[in-house]
Amino acid sequence: MSKKAQVLLVGCGGVGTIAALNLETGGHAAVTAVLRSNYSRVISDGFHIKSCDHGDIPNWKPSQVVNTIPTQSEVCFDYVVITTKNTPDHLPTMADLIEPTIVPGKTVIVLIQNGLNIERPFLEKYPDNICLSGVSLIGSHETAPAVIEHEDPDRLIIGAFQNPLLQKETGDAIAHQFVKMYSGSGKTDCIFTSDVPFHRWQKLVYNACLNPICAITGLDTGRIRLAEDTVSTLLRPAMQEVVAAAKAVGIILPSGIEDRMINIDPLTMYLRPSMLEDVQKGNLVEFETLVGEPLREGISRGVSMPTLTVLYHTLKAMQWRLKEQRGIIDVPAKGEYLKDGSK
Amino acid sequence: MSKKAQVLLVGCGGVGTIAALNLETGGHAAVTAVLRSNYSRVISDGFHIKSCDHGDIPNWKPSQVVNTIPTQSEVCFDYVVITTKNTPDHLPTMADLIEPTIVPGKTVIVLIQNGLNIERPFLEKYPDNICLSGVSLIGSHETAPAVIEHEDPDRLIIGAFQNPLLQKETGDAIAHQFVKMYSGSGKTDCIFTSDVPFHRWQKLVYNACLNPICAITGLDTGRIRLAEDTVSTLLRPAMQEVVAAAKAVGIILPSGIEDRMINIDPLTMYLRPSMLEDVQKGNLVEFETLVGEPLREGISRGVSMPTLTVLYHTLKAMQWRLKEQRGIIDVPAKGEYLKDGSK
Repeated sequence: MSKKAQVLLVGCGGVGTIAALNLETGGHAAVTAVLRSNYSRVISDGFHIKSCDHGDIPNWKPSQVVNTIPTQSEVCFDYVVITTKNTPDHLPTMADLIEPTIVPGKTVIVLIQNGLNIERPFLEKYPDNICLSGVSLIGSHETAPAVIEHEDPDRLIIGAFQNPLLQKETGDAIAHQFVKMYSGSGKTDCIFTSDVPFHRWQKLVYNACLNPICAITGLDTGRIRLAEDTVSTLLRPAMQEVVAAAKAVGIILPSGIEDRMINIDPLTMYLRPSMLEDVQKGNLVEFETLVGEPLREGISRGVSMPTLTVLYHTLKAMQWRLKEQRGIIDVPAKGEYLKDGSK
Repeated sequence: MSKKAQVLLVGCGGVGTIAALNLETGGHAAVTAVLRSNYSRVISDGFHIKSCDHGDIPNWKPSQVVNTIPTQSEVCFDYVVITTKNTPDHLPTMADLIEPTIVPGKTVIVLIQNGLNIERPFLEKYPDNICLSGVSLIGSHETAPAVIEHEDPDRLIIGAFQNPLLQKETGDAIAHQFVKMYSGSGKTDCIFTSDVPFHRWQKLVYNACLNPICAITGLDTGRIRLAEDTVSTLLRPAMQEVVAAAKAVGIILPSGIEDRMINIDPLTMYLRPSMLEDVQKGNLVEFETLVGEPLREGISRGVSMPTLTVLYHTLKAMQWRLKEQRGIIDVPAKGEYLKDGSK
């Protein structure tokens, strides 16, 4: 690793910016960050990062800052790291967006994102490329444009998604390389796993349940525990359904995982899961990868998932409202006559 | 009916004000209205009523306007008509509040309110009094303090709640009297029913389903129908569960009732059910009588009600949030240490 790896990083919010900072700090990577909403701010003033791992950095920029996906003729990236939210119900998809930069059979795609089956559109479109999974346990938020507050250490679990066209060993070797590169700073806890599905399902016990229940009720993870019997009537049943779906897929999660996840956030910190934040900010929510996919995996194997079913369809209706708010969906004017002559 | 009946009316919002106006217009009743939020406004300027039944009335007052429940030593009321929202999870209950004005065995209590088992606290506290049911199909809203917009005609179905200590005929006769008094204006459609449970359950097909689904998703009744498959995945399953619960109780609702209720509001009028309005205004929601009671009736008889179960517990969590917003519930300060030493 004498020569620096070229990394294209898409999505510099709370998670992505710390990943970019950590990769640059480690000395083995040069990061080109693709920014959208905070682009002009970062160009002029850089990021202001307050990080529990890296300290307070008032004006930080990665090696390159761009606002569109570069083409492979401009720079040949070794890794394309994606740290955006995942909303496959809203086109264009990320797999389509990164097309100009992907060299078939070469560029390694790294998805530091939550949820299940997120690799499918990438494996389908880039069947000869290695796709890595990053399960991040970081606590980091963009509290204002280009202001990153990183309060809970960066812990990242890296492994290779199973690619039916490639040897498992090939993917694992690349995953190990990425872990080495990401660990260069000595400031983060980045580990390799050979069992990506286990870690993805384990995190879903939190993400497929606390995220939707908080987003729908408007309560944070502390208040969910304070609010009478919400844990016993909604949260625990949803978690048990996810554990049962995982089991049907062949993944045995540790016993007591539900209680661990229920109590993982300090109660009086009143943490808001990302999906609640998104609803409150009017952003689209990543309900398909966090809730829809585990639901479909379980239901298709005959698992009874009544709680997750209602949560999923509720989120789908909320997403429709968010899309209308953002101008993605139009509705007929008030009082307008419809095609059948009714109002 | 030569002498005017004395009517105490509690809750002059959209429904109650039109009831008061209609009763006074009919000439058989003198209405004393108990007001809270709009009291001083009505005292100074009266109500401004724009009514499809009664016309535009810029400055209307009932016979008396008060801001507390009178005692029976002040006035002896023949009827106490309650048109408030119903939130039995928040004390004091209406059955307690009206105690000063109730003459045991004499005052007739009329509940023009939605939901199920709403008569129970009244029958328990006033076992010798007749309690009438009013199922209202009006469209009327208080759009600003003391401003009432009444756009859909007042249709009221009156009957006697079953009182185990009284003859059914006694209650039915009083219900007929009330219908006659309420019909005096000639401007409303007020009918008698001998089958109160049928009409209450029938209205629940709308109220136990559209109210919560709209309140939770933030969509009105038009958008619920526009939003992809929300009708087939959430609304219709919930309605089918209510129909099944009614059947288990012994009430056969008309076939096709689900479709009638799904399409009852004109799509492009984008009507917001009261529960959605309440959530948006930060008011408490009447989820126990609209959703909790039909759910408990069905579940206790072995009916499978997975959709309504999740909707109910979601509303309960939302109600907790609304109570905290209104200062009814306190939570520990952020970062405060709990009794077990944890945060």
